[in-house]
Amino acid sequence: MIKVGIVGGTGYTGVELLRLLATHPDVELTAITSRKEDGLPVADMYPSLRGHVKLAFSSPDKANLEQCDVVFFATPHGVAMAQAPALLAAGVKVIDLAADFRLKDQAKFEQWYKIPHTAPELIAEAVYGLPELNREDIKQARLIANPGCYPTTMQLGFYPLLKAGLVNAGGLIADCKSGVSGAGRKAEIGILFSESSDSFKAYGVAGHRHLPETTAQLQRFTDEKVALTFTPHLVPMIRGMHSTLYAQLNKDVSNEELQALFETQYKDEPFVDVMPFGSHPETRSTRGSNMLRLALHRPEGGNTVIVLVVQDNLVKGASGQAVQCMNLMFGLKETAGLQHIALLP
Amino acid sequence: MIKVGIVGGTGYTGVELLRLLATHPDVELTAITSRKEDGLPVADMYPSLRGHVKLAFSSPDKANLEQCDVVFFATPHGVAMAQAPALLAAGVKVIDLAADFRLKDQAKFEQWYKIPHTAPELIAEAVYGLPELNREDIKQARLIANPGCYPTTMQLGFYPLLKAGLVNAGGLIADCKSGVSGAGRKAEIGILFSESSDSFKAYGVAGHRHLPETTAQLQRFTDEKVALTFTPHLVPMIRGMHSTLYAQLNKDVSNEELQALFETQYKDEPFVDVMPFGSHPETRSTRGSNMLRLALHRPEGGNTVIVLVVQDNLVKGASGQAVQCMNLMFGLKETAGLQHIALLP
Amino acid sequence: MIKVGIVGGTGYTGVELLRLLATHPDVELTAITSRKEDGLPVADMYPSLRGHVKLAFSSPDKANLEQCDVVFFATPHGVAMAQAPALLAAGVKVIDLAADFRLKDQAKFEQWYKIPHTAPELIAEAVYGLPELNREDIKQARLIANPGCYPTTMQLGFYPLLKAGLVNAGGLIADCKSGVSGAGRKAEIGILFSESSDSFKAYGVAGHRHLPETTAQLQRFTDEKVALTFTPHLVPMIRGMHSTLYAQLNKDVSNEELQALFETQYKDEPFVDVMPFGSHPETRSTRGSNMLRLALHRPEGGNTVIVLVVQDNLVKGASGQAVQCMNLMFGLKETAGLQHIALLP
Amino acid sequence: MIKVGIVGGTGYTGVELLRLLATHPDVELTAITSRKEDGLPVADMYPSLRGHVKLAFSSPDKANLEQCDVVFFATPHGVAMAQAPALLAAGVKVIDLAADFRLKDQAKFEQWYKIPHTAPELIAEAVYGLPELNREDIKQARLIANPGCYPTTMQLGFYPLLKAGLVNAGGLIADCKSGVSGAGRKAEIGILFSESSDSFKAYGVAGHRHLPETTAQLQRFTDEKVALTFTPHLVPMIRGMHSTLYAQLNKDVSNEELQALFETQYKDEPFVDVMPFGSHPETRSTRGSNMLRLALHRPEGGNTVIVLVVQDNLVKGASGQAVQCMNLMFGLKETAGLQHIALLP
Repeated sequence: MIKVGIVGGTGYTGVELLRLLATHPDVELTAITSRKEDGLPVADMYPSLRGHVKLAFSSPDKANLEQCDVVFFATPHGVAMAQAPALLAAGVKVIDLAADFRLKDQAKFEQWYKIPHTAPELIAEAVYGLPELNREDIKQARLIANPGCYPTTMQLGFYPLLKAGLVNAGGLIADCKSGVSGAGRKAEIGILFSESSDSFKAYGVAGHRHLPETTAQLQRFTDEKVALTFTPHLVPMIRGMHSTLYAQLNKDVSNEELQALFETQYKDEPFVDVMPFGSHPETRSTRGSNMLRLALHRPEGGNTVIVLVVQDNLVKGASGQAVQCMNLMFGLKETAGLQHIALLP
Repeated sequence: MIKVGIVGGTGYTGVELLRLLATHPDVELTAITSRKEDGLPVADMYPSLRGHVKLAFSSPDKANLEQCDVVFFATPHGVAMAQAPALLAAGVKVIDLAADFRLKDQAKFEQWYKIPHTAPELIAEAVYGLPELNREDIKQARLIANPGCYPTTMQLGFYPLLKAGLVNAGGLIADCKSGVSGAGRKAEIGILFSESSDSFKAYGVAGHRHLPETTAQLQRFTDEKVALTFTPHLVPMIRGMHSTLYAQLNKDVSNEELQALFETQYKDEPFVDVMPFGSHPETRSTRGSNMLRLALHRPEGGNTVIVLVVQDNLVKGASGQAVQCMNLMFGLKETAGLQHIALLP
Repeated sequence: MIKVGIVGGTGYTGVELLRLLATHPDVELTAITSRKEDGLPVADMYPSLRGHVKLAFSSPDKANLEQCDVVFFATPHGVAMAQAPALLAAGVKVIDLAADFRLKDQAKFEQWYKIPHTAPELIAEAVYGLPELNREDIKQARLIANPGCYPTTMQLGFYPLLKAGLVNAGGLIADCKSGVSGAGRKAEIGILFSESSDSFKAYGVAGHRHLPETTAQLQRFTDEKVALTFTPHLVPMIRGMHSTLYAQLNKDVSNEELQALFETQYKDEPFVDVMPFGSHPETRSTRGSNMLRLALHRPEGGNTVIVLVVQDNLVKGASGQAVQCMNLMFGLKETAGLQHIALLP
Repeated sequence: MIKVGIVGGTGYTGVELLRLLATHPDVELTAITSRKEDGLPVADMYPSLRGHVKLAFSSPDKANLEQCDVVFFATPHGVAMAQAPALLAAGVKVIDLAADFRLKDQAKFEQWYKIPHTAPELIAEAVYGLPELNREDIKQARLIANPGCYPTTMQLGFYPLLKAGLVNAGGLIADCKSGVSGAGRKAEIGILFSESSDSFKAYGVAGHRHLPETTAQLQRFTDEKVALTFTPHLVPMIRGMHSTLYAQLNKDVSNEELQALFETQYKDEPFVDVMPFGSHPETRSTRGSNMLRLALHRPEGGNTVIVLVVQDNLVKGASGQAVQCMNLMFGLKETAGLQHIALLP
């Protein structure tokens, strides 16, 4: 059994990790830290875990995280980079669900996140935890930078097109929509029920932190300079993410060839479902599951190809992906503990 | 492996059975019937099942249900009673999620459901499938009448009080609230998103079919005549049921004694969670799980005791309970295939 | 034109006052105070008001509220009692949407609201602003205690029954359900979208502040001692309140007589709609309007009478009722500025 | 007073017309037809109208629509073209909220709507009812083709850019999101609460009927060939539409110039609100009102200009716009009966 610690178990990615790990066949939950909730049984904060998780929160100093095999950071940006060096030195693997190690360019990190990086020596080593594109590196990794939710959809959607050189890398558009849980469990007016229910809006159009992360990753797949317009929106639903991706074809290619390109790319992937050409995936078809589904469209047979991508932002977009990385890092079955069928309706 | 057939797999209790059974360790899904959808892969109707369920719907005549060990009826009222006799005669066990065998009084059935009963000879044999109150009978049963969603909450909430003779059986009130999925997957104006979202109403106050079922069952636990006022309401949420039960104490009893009464009653139950006195259970703490949670209140220490009961109407209130019955009927672990943690948030 | 000031215009009752008053034919919006938002145009905080409200927030010291004819307090409890004495002394009428003057029993106020009352000399003078029961007093009042949202529904629902002596005053039950906006515009975890959407729960069952208010008011209509069990619940909708009221008949009375009792009582009321016997009013039929609708039920012709009451908690349950009081205080048409038709769907 | 008839008052655009017209100062509601609901008081179907609308539905043959000054068709496609000729001949003006007269190209109409056009002689005369672009023609019109909801947002968002020749007309993208009421009040599985709540999806990507309408209208403003990619999505909210429009600048222009272009274009428009550059309009800021709001963005100062446009799909996107046209046709104040402030929260 792999001994697992979680730093910051009180947020949504934290409780989702608990849901997934509590029934994982190869995992023993060992410690969950929270400075503020020291001593509180986790199930008192999240009654959904009553009968499943017996652990209580403990303050970081008492948690003995060095005894774990792996520690997940479900924390705000900046926490993992403070604690990762000591844990790694103690032989503990680290999976950071925040952004501390997502950008290889330290200056860019500091510009977008407005904090100095305190563990720059680890940036190069950190592996970007998107198994579909980085599987072998993840298997060898000590330190994982788990991707952002939006970037997961954008990369898996654009990747086959860019790799095949079929689209203009300089004119990508991603019109993305996220459920409110993506904003986290924070006491903020804007994400109150009475503010965000029965309404729809864009946000962060001037510049969202997932833009540099995505651009940098997409650039790996093409020599052409990537230019991405990324527009995030807030949907009145709890979980779920839908990215509508637009690209301009620069080669003559049939719909069948496009479809085959994606099916071939992802045919062995347990968590990417290429739906029939022209499908309209619904976010609820992934609710609570680690599956990402996508479908291709080509309006009126023109030069614009549209990729519709859906996932559960808290599972494939965060905690499920982190568990998938853990499975790879420890030589477990990649799907272990991640076989949930989406809750529908 | 137990061979399972499902009649009527296109509704919500049907797809929920599929979700639960597809990952059940002891079950082999053998046939799913739908006259209308003959030949359609189940996963084409419910993309959430893609990769998990390979079966296609088949018309009843081709389905060979006699080869199953057990057949679930996730159908409108009236279907199970038409097909159960032949299946039972062929040695197949039957679990009916509709009301055909819930009422022991045939006349009352015909009065409330407005159809003649076509298998009256089976009414006496049918076992009411509420494991917490009928476990031993269920283990021996060939034919299960799976309880209604509301009745499950009302019975498990009122039972300890009635059995102990602590409350006035003639003055029970159940103010119940259900998510919209309780109304089924039917093309009806009243349950459109634009009609039922962002609103709240009572319905069926003049007489709901779950009233005679509940009254008859509650009557088994007391010699006093049961009189129950039952008011169902529609909540703008997909899944979830919250019953607020009111009873008048007729004996001097402390809060501690009340709490102990419930804790003792349900201490070995895997799917009933007695929360601390004064708790406010949320329906979401049961979303997707087979757990029913309840909590006691006693406003200002008076004679009114309030029992708050929550469950997922499609799981403990329908399909999960049916699987729990199946487990008992076949000598499996009662919790097999039912260990899902609620999806929260 | 009546010069109107609003103290605390940043919450939901504040913005709702603005919506109603901005198109009120006899009102001139003169000042809106907010210490924190001094100088900010109101329409910058609430874009719905762009083009309708030109006023900016001003800090209380600059607002010159003494020049107003009437000042509304849409503030937390405790603010109105601090500022009302000076305003009244300056000849300004005061309408408090909070609880400062709702309870005639000062000790009870201090017990339930946990703050000392700083203007006890005004408690006796304050008029409880429920026009249907207190119209003449309101016309003469200088200081109005606007009723709570729940109490409005409970009083208008129980009043005819108590006044006629038809029910047992000692056994009233009110099972009430409120939209989330009733909790106000506060940055609190519990009312986040991701916490309160797609779920349902009771809260404050042990004792809600609207209980003593309602009990005290109901006691005015009967010599029998009133005992009320009040159970509030949170509904995943923005606006709307549904109270399901239960009372035990103690006299022989027909359904027709019950219906006539209510129709007679409210026949001249512009904002109380007695629906046909056996109706199921929906909260959305009052969304955005000042109308309260109610309907009577009597399950199986027994002794229990059920009154279903719906209103928009922010209009008839708060700001609309306050404007209705203002209209009466200034001799305007009672319905002036309150003729909105509910927004449906 | 203008005598108004409504054909097809049972759908959402019908009840919304009733809400708007019942309080319109210059209108007398004269007849509402419904073959199916003949004799039923309108307020029995829509309790929100109780006390405001006394009319009953009447079957078309009894309705005497020829006595009206204007008749609105809130009907499925095909009804208006059948009845308009006789009404026009009788001197009655006609406003069609459906698509019968939106496309000037008859063949295109028949191709997209799959029905033969039965009044082709009227197509040329019909005026496209978008006041901001066609005001003078509307004033003179006998027959109005009221625009679709999506097309209204796309035209008002792209128009200033196209007219000024600043963007590439051949590469327009409109990623649009609509509340569920846009699908109408039809008993269909896909728009049930349990199907469309807490989820998000695209639909009709292969070809939506609003595409040819929008393309044809946009083509009027530019000599360059318009090519538009239009992707509609379904949002789990009742009302509201949010269009995210993308265009590629082909000239050197500053953000200030872009903003000035829109502000100048719409400065006298009562129902178009150009918000500050970089704003994120929310659909709820238009809920129940006839206002359309838009805001400009230019990510990282590049060549892509984004226009965010919001409206209430049932008001400015349908019934409100129709009333606005009526006001113009009869020489009334353009804003008469349309001054509602959006309901927020």
